[in-house]
Amino acid sequence: MTEEILTSIPEISEVSIGILQIFIKHTSASLTINENADPTVRQDFESHFNEFVPENASYYKHTYEGSDDMPAHIKSSLLGNSLSIPITNGRLNLGTWQGIYLCEHRNYGGSRKVVITVLGS
Amino acid sequence: MTEEILTSIPEISEVSIGILQIFIKHTSASLTINENADPTVRQDFESHFNEFVPENASYYKHTYEGSDDMPAHIKSSLLGNSLSIPITNGRLNLGTWQGIYLCEHRNYGGSRKVVITVLGS
Amino acid sequence: MTEEILTSIPEISEVSIGILQIFIKHTSASLTINENADPTVRQDFESHFNEFVPENASYYKHTYEGSDDMPAHIKSSLLGNSLSIPITNGRLNLGTWQGIYLCEHRNYGGSRKVVITVLGS
Repeated sequence: MTEEILTSIPEISEVSIGILQIFIKHTSASLTINENADPTVRQDFESHFNEFVPENASYYKHTYEGSDDMPAHIKSSLLGNSLSIPITNGRLNLGTWQGIYLCEHRNYGGSRKVVITVLGS
Repeated sequence: MTEEILTSIPEISEVSIGILQIFIKHTSASLTINENADPTVRQDFESHFNEFVPENASYYKHTYEGSDDMPAHIKSSLLGNSLSIPITNGRLNLGTWQGIYLCEHRNYGGSRKVVITVLGS
Repeated sequence: MTEEILTSIPEISEVSIGILQIFIKHTSASLTINENADPTVRQDFESHFNEFVPENASYYKHTYEGSDDMPAHIKSSLLGNSLSIPITNGRLNLGTWQGIYLCEHRNYGGSRKVVITVLGS
């Protein structure tokens, strides 16, 4: 979603030193930064988190919203619900391989809302 | 702890666009945002992290502060020790189901200190 | 790396209330805050993450950059690629035992770049 943010927040270009903060208003989706070049990295994230945050764990009590719900809450907190990215001379100062992932942790997620704040001058 | 923050930081109401930053000054407790409605979500977090960050792992060397100490350090870094929450028109811009968790990872934790910073205008 | 930051960013001393933000421009290294006194804590972090984010998992598809590459991407997102630390009266307001870890997740990592931003007044 890096491109979407750059085109929808033109204010970034007016900031010489600052921070772009992105916050997702949900408890079953998350935001992270990782490799943006090879799509298999994202598939491996999905596989790994499904293995280490399993559905139907015997210890879950919060089960009435579906077997994918409680794992989604845990994944959301493991990856985090906000990102802070430096802005330098009007551009996001990301590394060459870095891109922003919006991680949907429900099997059938709806639309998701983020709040984007630009700090700096 | 969402209510406690709102009542103890009246400055939030004076900010139209900004960020509330909460930082916990400890290495065996953490801060995260997750579902605030059903208390079993928090219990399932506790169970999950106890399963995937076990006590008495054979590879632990840092054991002299008790069997719950090293897992507490790891859980603290997995969940993170700070939160950044957008402020919009004098209110925390949280999602409907989002609440702030202060996660105590020691079996017998003492009092915990947080530093709260408001940025914006 | 707490000491390195304090000496290379003298601007911290001019801020009475603010935030220091540190961002690592890589997808196979991370930043976290944890116990800075006993070096075995860091060794146990390494052991724990090697156990719970294994190399050569059967489900990995992104394997052509070496067996330590995909685990490094996952560890990087679990721990996170940025830190926000409060500044109070010209000093980082860290807890007694807190120190900044730069976590290298590749077996043979090269040099790593961070961007440091000071916000506040």
